[in-house]
Amino acid sequence: MKLIIAVVQDKDSNRLSHALVKADFRATKLASTGGFLKAGNTTFLIGVEDEKVSGVLEIIKSNCKAREQLVAPVSPMGGNADSYVPYPVEIQVGGATVFVVPVEQFEQF
Amino acid sequence: MKLIIAVVQDKDSNRLSHALVKADFRATKLASTGGFLKAGNTTFLIGVEDEKVSGVLEIIKSNCKAREQLVAPVSPMGGNADSYVPYPVEIQVGGATVFVVPVEQFEQF
Amino acid sequence: MKLIIAVVQDKDSNRLSHALVKADFRATKLASTGGFLKAGNTTFLIGVEDEKVSGVLEIIKSNCKAREQLVAPVSPMGGNADSYVPYPVEIQVGGATVFVVPVEQFEQF
Ligand code: NI
Ligand code: NI
Ligand code: NI
Repeated sequence: MKLIIAVVQDKDSNRLSHALVKADFRATKLASTGGFLKAGNTTFLIGVEDEKVSGVLEIIKSNCKAREQLVAPVSPMGGNADSYVPYPVEIQVGGATVFVVPVEQFEQF
Repeated sequence: MKLIIAVVQDKDSNRLSHALVKADFRATKLASTGGFLKAGNTTFLIGVEDEKVSGVLEIIKSNCKAREQLVAPVSPMGGNADSYVPYPVEIQVGGATVFVVPVEQFEQF
Repeated sequence: MKLIIAVVQDKDSNRLSHALVKADFRATKLASTGGFLKAGNTTFLIGVEDEKVSGVLEIIKSNCKAREQLVAPVSPMGGNADSYVPYPVEIQVGGATVFVVPVEQFEQF
């Protein structure tokens, strides 16, 4: 048994929840902020049998992997024309930081 | 030293807190949602000496164990008489999912 | 790789965050309440290489250590003169409870 602790961006949190449920894994979500990832984030606790760890990591990777996203330009407040970029830019979104921790005993009451 | 991570339903959270304090165990509660248990839930972090793990598990079990609860019938909105059950029904409440994790170092500053 | 789980008082939380960032450590903060420390508290998750654990513990200690603080006297509501202390008193603030947990696998996606 392992406990997978995964910190993911809020924007990927719902999608990851649904993908885990669909694959019959159960997770608890903890409200969390800052740190590993800049934007608001969610910490998942997922308890799994040893042989299913890699399957869960694949699900996290495919739903939360860091990727580029095109963002439409925004006119700068106060009209600082020097910093205005008049075309869409790519920013990086998503990403996950994942710890796999050993579980010595697991109980359900 | 072990770290006990226990996910319990919100409705059992206060009772568990009091039982732990009474038995002189200290816990931190993390706000958490969904997953292991359907309703709103709370995640307890409880640090204990190895020989006290079973005592804490007993306290969690006796305060949070899944059990049946009688629920009074509710008239269906919109009057769908087919699904109306005119007598109290038993639903399952409570339950706890518990991970015992090894602690390599413990410090209090 | 270790996962450091540190419960600190809210009043020290911001200072600890900044000190960790300055030392190039990344942490996730979980909202938490009660238990190890009486006042509102924050739980930090900090993933670090084994050889950096003591450095992080030093940062937690120097930013969150329990210490005395002088508190100005407050006139009692309802004028219970018996319990009124007409000079500043020292109370204890701060403190941290820290668990170092082994990490079997660490991934960033
Ligand atoms: Ni949904
Ligand atoms: Ni109470
Ligand atoms: Ni700040």
